[in-house]
Amino acid sequence: MFRANEVKALLFDTFGTVVDWRSSLIEAFSQFGQSHQLAGDWSQLVDQWRAAYWPSMDKVRKGKLAWTTLDQLHRAALVKLLPAFKLEQLSADQIDDLTAFWHRLKPWPDARLGLALLKKHFLIGPLSNGNFSLMVELNKFADLGWDFIFGSDIFRHYKPDAETYLEACSLLGLRPAQVVMVAAHNYDLHAARSFGLHTAFIPRPTEYGPSQTKDLRPEGPWDIVAADLEDLATRLIENCSTK
Amino acid sequence: MFRANEVKALLFDTFGTVVDWRSSLIEAFSQFGQSHQLAGDWSQLVDQWRAAYWPSMDKVRKGKLAWTTLDQLHRAALVKLLPAFKLEQLSADQIDDLTAFWHRLKPWPDARLGLALLKKHFLIGPLSNGNFSLMVELNKFADLGWDFIFGSDIFRHYKPDAETYLEACSLLGLRPAQVVMVAAHNYDLHAARSFGLHTAFIPRPTEYGPSQTKDLRPEGPWDIVAADLEDLATRLIENCSTK
Repeated sequence: MFRANEVKALLFDTFGTVVDWRSSLIEAFSQFGQSHQLAGDWSQLVDQWRAAYWPSMDKVRKGKLAWTTLDQLHRAALVKLLPAFKLEQLSADQIDDLTAFWHRLKPWPDARLGLALLKKHFLIGPLSNGNFSLMVELNKFADLGWDFIFGSDIFRHYKPDAETYLEACSLLGLRPAQVVMVAAHNYDLHAARSFGLHTAFIPRPTEYGPSQTKDLRPEGPWDIVAADLEDLATRLIENCSTK
Repeated sequence: MFRANEVKALLFDTFGTVVDWRSSLIEAFSQFGQSHQLAGDWSQLVDQWRAAYWPSMDKVRKGKLAWTTLDQLHRAALVKLLPAFKLEQLSADQIDDLTAFWHRLKPWPDARLGLALLKKHFLIGPLSNGNFSLMVELNKFADLGWDFIFGSDIFRHYKPDAETYLEACSLLGLRPAQVVMVAAHNYDLHAARSFGLHTAFIPRPTEYGPSQTKDLRPEGPWDIVAADLEDLATRLIENCSTK
């Protein structure tokens, strides 16, 4: 049985779970378009950009590509997309700037308060596929208040590789059973659970836009299912005080 | 010439530079002694404990001992000291508790304000020989407000090994020249400078107690010498705004 009293730290998937990458990126591209007199279907660009994430990361996971950070994968994927959106004239510096849009994403409305409440009882930090510098800058921009920051380049592995979950617990000096993985994605929780971590699912049904079809509901025996991060804080802290 | 405008991040030695380990540990042992009706020369115990740090760490640096965290080195050194202080009857749990005194050290009086001021302009975090979990707990206890936390077990190297300074810069996505190493210890700055980082010296003339003989003054061409962390903030921010 799940006992929040035994939990010392919470690890958070970040893109989608804590920050709303899609609407943040669409807004950033719209502003970029306006200031450079460029028109484009920015939603489609953002969706295609994100769609390139999994296959490119998978090449690294399967050893077909040497270790490459998420910033580098993002940049390479964007470069491939530019011609289709008539943006092939952009300079290298401009492409760097667009790639850095991922460093400045808005938290979901419940995120800051939820994390602040959780931080009073637990150590909190991201376990994301983002690289360390990306996660550090995102934390500074979005004021998430992490107690610690992990980046995939610390482990040189991407989730759902075992090394990410287990080395994170090891660096924290905790057993996996003392840690909760919090995510809006069932695949992440399946992996975390298989390595002994506790699991909390937060649905983000518009993460991928209005016609999202996956991760609309929990698809595993997760220890907690909460409406959002504020609700997660309420449930975990209640569970602590009643045990 | 040193230009603070180019600096993006500050890395801080922590034990001695940011927190006053000696008086914190002496106070913790005194309280422990009182609550367990034990008398002892706690200052001497603390000084001997700290003196065991460098040789034990050096064994790891020279490959004579496999990777061992600072918490583990501290514990092993303490166990060896216990008989001389008539403490050999302590349980394993009690020895763990004493070792964890290193996780709850008081900041020097200028540290919190100095770091808060610096944090408005730069990314700040520790580059210490402490392990990650130690540094995370110390940050939570002492409310240092780090933007990120490094631990020596991320690098599996101890300062002054090159890997610690260079991998820290690499994880931050910065060139060494964009980073300042801040320390009360000249050896640390000599190493940082040799790897291309900027350097700031903060004297802590009572770190080792009233009869301290080393690191009383700067012993190298450091970019900045400041009286304390508040003074460092004033100087760096002034340097930023005048360039």
